[in-house]
Amino acid sequence: MARDIGHVAVVGLGLIGSSVARAVKERLPHIAVTGHDASETVRAEARALGFCDRIADEAADAVAAADLVILAVPVGRMTDAARAIAPGLKGDAIISDVGSSKAGVGEALRAALPDHAVIPAHPVAGTENSGPAAGFASLFDGRWCIVTPAADAPADAVAAVTDLWQMLGAKVETMDAAHHDMVLAVTSHLPHLIAYTIVGTASELEEVTESEVIKYSAGGFRDFTRIAASDPVMWRDVFLANKDAVLATLQRFNEDLTVLQQAIRRGDGAKLEDWFTRTRAIRRSIIAEGQDDPAPDFGRRH
Amino acid sequence: MARDIGHVAVVGLGLIGSSVARAVKERLPHIAVTGHDASETVRAEARALGFCDRIADEAADAVAAADLVILAVPVGRMTDAARAIAPGLKGDAIISDVGSSKAGVGEALRAALPDHAVIPAHPVAGTENSGPAAGFASLFDGRWCIVTPAADAPADAVAAVTDLWQMLGAKVETMDAAHHDMVLAVTSHLPHLIAYTIVGTASELEEVTESEVIKYSAGGFRDFTRIAASDPVMWRDVFLANKDAVLATLQRFNEDLTVLQQAIRRGDGAKLEDWFTRTRAIRRSIIAEGQDDPAPDFGRRH
Repeated sequence: MARDIGHVAVVGLGLIGSSVARAVKERLPHIAVTGHDASETVRAEARALGFCDRIADEAADAVAAADLVILAVPVGRMTDAARAIAPGLKGDAIISDVGSSKAGVGEALRAALPDHAVIPAHPVAGTENSGPAAGFASLFDGRWCIVTPAADAPADAVAAVTDLWQMLGAKVETMDAAHHDMVLAVTSHLPHLIAYTIVGTASELEEVTESEVIKYSAGGFRDFTRIAASDPVMWRDVFLANKDAVLATLQRFNEDLTVLQQAIRRGDGAKLEDWFTRTRAIRRSIIAEGQDDPAPDFGRRH
Repeated sequence: MARDIGHVAVVGLGLIGSSVARAVKERLPHIAVTGHDASETVRAEARALGFCDRIADEAADAVAAADLVILAVPVGRMTDAARAIAPGLKGDAIISDVGSSKAGVGEALRAALPDHAVIPAHPVAGTENSGPAAGFASLFDGRWCIVTPAADAPADAVAAVTDLWQMLGAKVETMDAAHHDMVLAVTSHLPHLIAYTIVGTASELEEVTESEVIKYSAGGFRDFTRIAASDPVMWRDVFLANKDAVLATLQRFNEDLTVLQQAIRRGDGAKLEDWFTRTRAIRRSIIAEGQDDPAPDFGRRH
């Protein structure tokens, strides 16, 4: 049986936080939503956009009536955010978050708020845009939200967080935090690291100008620039928080890249063709699972 | 003054060849289009789709009346294709192609057809799909087509190829073939190699199942699977044909990746944030240049 949630507070009103607030307002109109952001500029923008019932200037004030608090700040700021809300929390308020790494965040939140049910969560969704204007209510439709409660987390609090995400359109999976961090290192963190790297590499070559890179980017490069346009502070924190899993998967990637590099150098066409044939099947599975658009070229307009 | 083109032959009727045929039929109805493909299955499919005036069973027959022949076969098959069309060519027929690497292709075509004007070209456009059904007439709209004639190529033949691509919707740039190969190594070949690598890496880890990789791919990984679904034979040939430039840019990429790897290991957040902030600007330039969709997430449906 899930705890009843009549009031949600969202702390951090960027892409994800503002999307949560919009989705709650649109789909769960009986739930009150209060918002807060540490930035005065963001608070003013959020007030103008009107996706919360109220925007509080102070974090502790924002959470005062909340049954569930969702921290949507970069993972490096979770402890600060938890300390800021602590004085205002109701005794039975559930604490959750939306961070992209979970083991460290869970520990930090449990340490900062030892008297509260901490139910970490990660909606695997987003765009390359940032800030309160970038959010939208349908962001979580059909996407997975991974919930990583500690073994002794109260079942009614886990159920409340699970139910909320399902009502916002997501599919929910429960997972051990350490395993989440390994899975996401592969499906999200390593891809971001690689994209950030190649975009940096391409923009600093002597033989090829930046203008040429931009003009001829439709050959494949432009795909990487979307991810490499993601929020720098958020991603800095993800790599620092999930260091071990990221470095472990990066080592596997480097081994594989060396194998293909050698195949190219030796002119081993059979090895290349075999590898490229195997990778083709993965995309078909992703589309079959509803995790990407079946339209060619992501449905870009031609 | 451009040579007059009243008849085009397209040899190789996959994504690019069939898109050329469709675009000519749709936009230049006064030009006759004959097609050929070495595969009987593809010829039958092309006949059923009807995007050429005629599909010939023999390459030499397909080109018999052509003022311009466009070879749209994998770059490793250019010499074979040139030999196959040679017996049927009119004396003043212009030979062009659509290959993704240009120095080797230009040499191969000039060697195989020494009496003809060879004007290599590369439309920087495509999708992850292959085959005659995957093509569409608007594929080249607003994309760049790079023409790489030898220094002594006849000006009227260069003009004819340039005019055709412009009439098919492309913007045309003329470039030295070796420089083309360096530019495309960065903007297309290296991105494909990296995408093929990471998709292979992710599908063969012990700690994370393929099912998990697919489910949580919306965190970034799915973007790479599009490119890694591209035609395996075409890409095998590109890497073999443009080996030197690909290996040179790969070395730069590896250097940069090592720098970021070290920053993560050392916890150097400032270095990461600085890098990620610089890469963000590149995407804005690509969108401003009309080379990608300004909609978030490539305009994917949410």
